[in-house]
Amino acid sequence: MTTAGTNDCTPGPNDALLIVDAQNDFLPGGRLAVPQGDDVVPALNRYSTAFRTRHLPIFASRDWHPANHCSFMEQGGPWPPHCVAETNGAQFASGLDLNEAVIISKATEPKSDAYSAFENTDLDQRLQQVGVKRLFIGGLATDYCVLNSVRDAIRLKYSVVLLEDAIRAVNLQPDDGAKALQEMLDLGCQPATVEAVSLNPPKPPALLTDLYQLAMLKAYHDRGMNQTAVFEFYIRNLPAQRNFLMAAGVEQVLEYLESLQFTPQERDWLKTSGGYSEDFVDSLKDFRFTGDVDAVPEGTIFFGNEPVLRITAPLPQAQLIESRIINILQMQIMAASKAARMVLTAPGKILLDFGLRRAHGAEAGLFVARASYLAGFTGTATVPAEPFYGIPVFGTMAHSYIQAHGDETAAFRDFAHSWPDNTIFLLDTYDTLQAAHTVVMLARDLKKEGISVHGIRLDSGDLAQLSKQVRSILDAGGLKETKIFASGNLDEYSLTQLIAQQAPIDGFGIGTRLAVSEDAPSLECVYKIQEYDGQPRRKRSQGKATWPGKKQVFRTFDAQGKIQEDHLAMEDESLPGEPLLKPCMRQGKRLSPPAPLEQSRTHAARQLDQLPEALRSLESAPPYPVHISQKIRDLADRLDQQPI
Amino acid sequence: MTTAGTNDCTPGPNDALLIVDAQNDFLPGGRLAVPQGDDVVPALNRYSTAFRTRHLPIFASRDWHPANHCSFMEQGGPWPPHCVAETNGAQFASGLDLNEAVIISKATEPKSDAYSAFENTDLDQRLQQVGVKRLFIGGLATDYCVLNSVRDAIRLKYSVVLLEDAIRAVNLQPDDGAKALQEMLDLGCQPATVEAVSLNPPKPPALLTDLYQLAMLKAYHDRGMNQTAVFEFYIRNLPAQRNFLMAAGVEQVLEYLESLQFTPQERDWLKTSGGYSEDFVDSLKDFRFTGDVDAVPEGTIFFGNEPVLRITAPLPQAQLIESRIINILQMQIMAASKAARMVLTAPGKILLDFGLRRAHGAEAGLFVARASYLAGFTGTATVPAEPFYGIPVFGTMAHSYIQAHGDETAAFRDFAHSWPDNTIFLLDTYDTLQAAHTVVMLARDLKKEGISVHGIRLDSGDLAQLSKQVRSILDAGGLKETKIFASGNLDEYSLTQLIAQQAPIDGFGIGTRLAVSEDAPSLECVYKIQEYDGQPRRKRSQGKATWPGKKQVFRTFDAQGKIQEDHLAMEDESLPGEPLLKPCMRQGKRLSPPAPLEQSRTHAARQLDQLPEALRSLESAPPYPVHISQKIRDLADRLDQQPI
Repeated sequence: MTTAGTNDCTPGPNDALLIVDAQNDFLPGGRLAVPQGDDVVPALNRYSTAFRTRHLPIFASRDWHPANHCSFMEQGGPWPPHCVAETNGAQFASGLDLNEAVIISKATEPKSDAYSAFENTDLDQRLQQVGVKRLFIGGLATDYCVLNSVRDAIRLKYSVVLLEDAIRAVNLQPDDGAKALQEMLDLGCQPATVEAVSLNPPKPPALLTDLYQLAMLKAYHDRGMNQTAVFEFYIRNLPAQRNFLMAAGVEQVLEYLESLQFTPQERDWLKTSGGYSEDFVDSLKDFRFTGDVDAVPEGTIFFGNEPVLRITAPLPQAQLIESRIINILQMQIMAASKAARMVLTAPGKILLDFGLRRAHGAEAGLFVARASYLAGFTGTATVPAEPFYGIPVFGTMAHSYIQAHGDETAAFRDFAHSWPDNTIFLLDTYDTLQAAHTVVMLARDLKKEGISVHGIRLDSGDLAQLSKQVRSILDAGGLKETKIFASGNLDEYSLTQLIAQQAPIDGFGIGTRLAVSEDAPSLECVYKIQEYDGQPRRKRSQGKATWPGKKQVFRTFDAQGKIQEDHLAMEDESLPGEPLLKPCMRQGKRLSPPAPLEQSRTHAARQLDQLPEALRSLESAPPYPVHISQKIRDLADRLDQQPI
Repeated sequence: MTTAGTNDCTPGPNDALLIVDAQNDFLPGGRLAVPQGDDVVPALNRYSTAFRTRHLPIFASRDWHPANHCSFMEQGGPWPPHCVAETNGAQFASGLDLNEAVIISKATEPKSDAYSAFENTDLDQRLQQVGVKRLFIGGLATDYCVLNSVRDAIRLKYSVVLLEDAIRAVNLQPDDGAKALQEMLDLGCQPATVEAVSLNPPKPPALLTDLYQLAMLKAYHDRGMNQTAVFEFYIRNLPAQRNFLMAAGVEQVLEYLESLQFTPQERDWLKTSGGYSEDFVDSLKDFRFTGDVDAVPEGTIFFGNEPVLRITAPLPQAQLIESRIINILQMQIMAASKAARMVLTAPGKILLDFGLRRAHGAEAGLFVARASYLAGFTGTATVPAEPFYGIPVFGTMAHSYIQAHGDETAAFRDFAHSWPDNTIFLLDTYDTLQAAHTVVMLARDLKKEGISVHGIRLDSGDLAQLSKQVRSILDAGGLKETKIFASGNLDEYSLTQLIAQQAPIDGFGIGTRLAVSEDAPSLECVYKIQEYDGQPRRKRSQGKATWPGKKQVFRTFDAQGKIQEDHLAMEDESLPGEPLLKPCMRQGKRLSPPAPLEQSRTHAARQLDQLPEALRSLESAPPYPVHISQKIRDLADRLDQQPI
């Protein structure tokens, strides 16, 4: 029923986000820790994204106390020393996305305290300067600085949207948080969660895993096997049709891990589904991912046997996530790697992902849009890729649009009137060359109305020949600026041919063969245990043996800056070259804010620049050298001697 | 935060579902229509599924009046005549799933009326007989029969969960529904929606489509092009590796269509994303699918050019849904068709879907589980397939489980203690044959504890040879009942080989090659306009021309009951044979309840039985004859003569 009403929680003009005191000292482990205070960080990041992508202002307040601040116990105040200016405790949470945020420091003088972000700050003035009338407020803690900031905001006549999923309470008294929440609602705050504020990808349940993970989890639970395990995700061998792969999907893995929880419904289902003891299911209530993640940055080129992502976590956690991690990473790696081949093949061309319909389900469609953009595509036709990931979306008309009109000229004209800035006409519904002449005629009328023909699209026939003929017709008709787009079962091989034939095509819509990675629709990707409780592990299965231990990849470059060779080594080895795996998460928390997709895309472009010529070819190249260090080999030998 | 609490809305022992008066006369078009009353039908069906799959009782009340009932105006009552016993108006909504429900008729006597399902009925007695203490109540109408049933239920000391998304109000006064809702909450009802009551597949947004659909929608809106269009989904040509295809995913298309709405957030996004006028976006507020659907039943065998699903709807509706319909159907058809080949290859074997991790994203994993089960698989490892679709799930242990233990024997023993009824041991972590001997030794100890070894699994090496050797070891060790399972890059080709080699394998776990349909990871599936505003349409694009008009497929059988030939004809032609497309939805409403998956699975098995020998082969067979009727050919010729 909510979908039928109007939504007034979408950020728009006159709105701003206020993040209150999301500082280390208020997080678990800090001097004045708010229980589960770190849960606000991923939630706040989603709000930040919603505001930043709409170019709306973000403000972040912080306690910024002198060492002798009056609120500290030693000065007679109620609190332990916290958030002392310039100390680590006063820093914002490491994973908090504060890109472009305005920082408001408060309680900076020894003698005066301030719970509210407005108290003795210029926040009100700054908000007025940019015309803010409504504030979206979240942060720490519900019952102190959030509450007081909200009180002031309301007093100062701001409307307030209270971000219910991005606040946590100190709860010195158990119901302090609840009371504060009630007071804020009574003051007229509108409560909201991120689902009401922004569009988000559908989130699969925690139960989206293989049943054996749950079976093992129960067995681990029964035996108390909870020590630290190290698992690595890697690809055994590259497909014959790939000279390299491109890392993608790491961000979705991190999002998955930071939000992984079993809902009450899921736990109820487990209880009734047989075999899961009450105490085991109850133990899942507090299940969270509290481990470490190291991964290669998205867009990085990698090869067989090289870990792309490493999980170091209590065994049950590291186990449960296997299925979904592979499920996320394989798809995005496959799509990015396929797209990268097209990017290399067609430099300077517009490349668009048209793959949603033939992608394998909804999530595959979204992943393809994201991964191909990462690899260098210009954009996608898949609409939610823009609100979800900030990717430019493109699209004009289908054959059915022309056919519904019956009269092709009328169809083109109508479309131009509805979309004067997006006039790309589809030519091949009936007769491509005739349609090209139609466009030339129509363009004269449209020009009088101030509308120019931006482009045409070909979707069938001999694209090289047709594009040349159409180019001639357009040029002769004075439409030299009109671009030619082509689509229809294209891939890197047909792109190569079209470019070799000097087809005058400016942009390509790439669908099926990208979306399903037609010539390599799966990868030999695995996620394998390498160490448990400090002991390295090795699987010896025929043809599927693993290299044991916690590893790192070191990469060296030649004089031209091209990648030269990689060394797979133990993590504690110190080899020349750049270590590819970087720390991303510690104890379940991000070490830095989510990398913006544009930044990863720039990294990917640089990685493609660093490819040696042979690997850039569509033809199968001699394998890139990945050396296994002697220390790993020795360890494998030693483990093979152990009794089982 | 809701996920941290306990959920008390999951149906369990002592719970029952009560569906109030979901009858035709209370639906739009009925004698006493409740506005949007038909919206409760899909919602109630989801609750029905949750209760039925848990074997919990379902009750459905109905007004069942004599023709001279006192509530009718002509008898001095307040209402027009409605729900007269045995008339169509008194029937339950056509799409309502009432399988196994107990029907409670009320107000069956001329002189007495009854709003409450308890009034002068034996409902209370029947609930007590089966020990019900809590009622989940939804239906029509909020402000009359639902309200009065709830009042009585509370009075009779039942706990009540009020199904907020499955009730609608008459609202003679505009706030009648709101008042009734408030009264029920004040009485102590717990409000709930389907998300709190059952596990449901994640639902992609309405915006999950190609941008050109939205661009065309605006152009249609600007021109008022809203006449009826006919689109057909079909596959141009079968892949070389497929002699037939199996229909699957129709149910997901129907669910998509019946729940298709733009949320306020989506409309807000459109407003800010450029080019979409305010009045166009506002028009999307009431966007619903109100068209007709005809489709072949899931599990039906079909061939190239044959429509699997036909949409007849106002042009903008029929247009918008193109991308998602193809996205749903291609994946499930691909997976069902691939799985069917394995089912044909390995009769009598246990076949399990292990494909989640290598499927292309979350939804692909779920679709593969569903489609392979439809085609005859025994079950899946993908956990949510059970709560979402009622599919049996299977799973035991991974190599990492053995490796974490270090000691293989200890690993097996621990697992047997945790899962005494699910003892399937994975043998190939280190040395398969040695592990088989370990199992034999361990089985003696386990036997003393009353635990028998159900099976072992092989995941690498020469499966034919290893399975024979392991079978010998197990048999010699007295474990003749212990089953052998195998997995590892299997498909219909390797199954054929293993069976030809008489490998003593009882069951197979099939992963990657099923999940991505490795040898045919996409289909030439399209969704094409065939008629607009009563006029047939034909696309003439080179190599992509369509057969015009609204069509039907007629299938004939030979004397042995095998399928013989199909005729693609105009819908109004009358040809011998069985018409394959059946009516599913009219004016956006289902004509019958969702087909249970088991029923579709039975249909699929019968379809496979009807395949001629040649088509059952893994080798490429001569194409099955699909004839195009002369009437279609004449129409195509006529359309090709028309000016464009």
